[in-house]
Amino acid sequence: MLGNLVPAVQRSVIEQLTSRPKLIVMDTMNFWMDIAMEELMKTIKMVDVLTINDSEARQLSGEYSLVKAAQKILAMGPKVLVIKKGEHGALLFNKEEVFFAPALPLEEVFDPTGAGDSFAGGFIGYLAQTRDISFANMKRALIYASAMASFTVERFGTERLIGLSQEQIDARLQEFIDLVDFEITFA
Amino acid sequence: MLGNLVPAVQRSVIEQLTSRPKLIVMDTMNFWMDIAMEELMKTIKMVDVLTINDSEARQLSGEYSLVKAAQKILAMGPKVLVIKKGEHGALLFNKEEVFFAPALPLEEVFDPTGAGDSFAGGFIGYLAQTRDISFANMKRALIYASAMASFTVERFGTERLIGLSQEQIDARLQEFIDLVDFEITFA
Repeated sequence: MLGNLVPAVQRSVIEQLTSRPKLIVMDTMNFWMDIAMEELMKTIKMVDVLTINDSEARQLSGEYSLVKAAQKILAMGPKVLVIKKGEHGALLFNKEEVFFAPALPLEEVFDPTGAGDSFAGGFIGYLAQTRDISFANMKRALIYASAMASFTVERFGTERLIGLSQEQIDARLQEFIDLVDFEITFA
Repeated sequence: MLGNLVPAVQRSVIEQLTSRPKLIVMDTMNFWMDIAMEELMKTIKMVDVLTINDSEARQLSGEYSLVKAAQKILAMGPKVLVIKKGEHGALLFNKEEVFFAPALPLEEVFDPTGAGDSFAGGFIGYLAQTRDISFANMKRALIYASAMASFTVERFGTERLIGLSQEQIDARLQEFIDLVDFEITFA
């Protein structure tokens, strides 16, 4: 998991590895698009999953439609793209499929700082624990990611994450399951 | 289904009915909150379901959090509240439950005019056809509503809706099902 950092440093981390990991996830931001686009493009080419937010996806691709933006960005190298939309959820794309993880409607957002990092940690943590990088498992990882971010914003810093029990995490995951649970059958 | 109109006229429609319908859905907008809030509050009190967008829910309730806004608005009379978030989907609330219908990520939004009316039509149309006003069925109705709105924005006016086949509608509904389809099981 390459946290958001100077793209050249992210690339140097990959180049120092003697064997390539099964999965490289990279987070980045608009700042590097503004000042180091060439370096950024070289690094993006080397990773499996890129995570950015919606306005960054638009900036990187030059497309307003996130569907079009995703396909352009997937042509730059990554096999999977995560587009984070903050309080509006997150999208997961590969070349053929799309998945949407909702954000949980919260009573109060105390401090959004760290939501993106918690999201990234939840995503890679779930994939590392389950050792399954299929698209179906990445969908689950995106829900875990969203759940961790939903905890983080409820307090300052990592306060809400410290001492979380598995029961609390499972209860939060269940809220995500219930939030989009519906059944439609066709005649 | 009371389309968005002067609140006093909406109320007069209800008062002209000799028997009260099983379900009254009301659409309204910020304009009436600005110029006719007192009339609006009287009309809202008489309906079962209110549909508004996110900024209108905030204006009507004075709460930024949509969860808090929903509970305040449900205390004004309606048993169910739909909060439309445009390209970010829609929320369905009653006093105990919340459901989220995603918006379909589209290649191109040709013209968003009429999306809200198509949404309302899809919602009430599905409920009228199925004659079931349970929360579980309203969740399905919200997906139908979102599907109809997703067609409307693909062309001007009603062009995309005219001549739609059941197969095309079912295929679109299947896209919504797939979009949020994931499975998490607990140990």
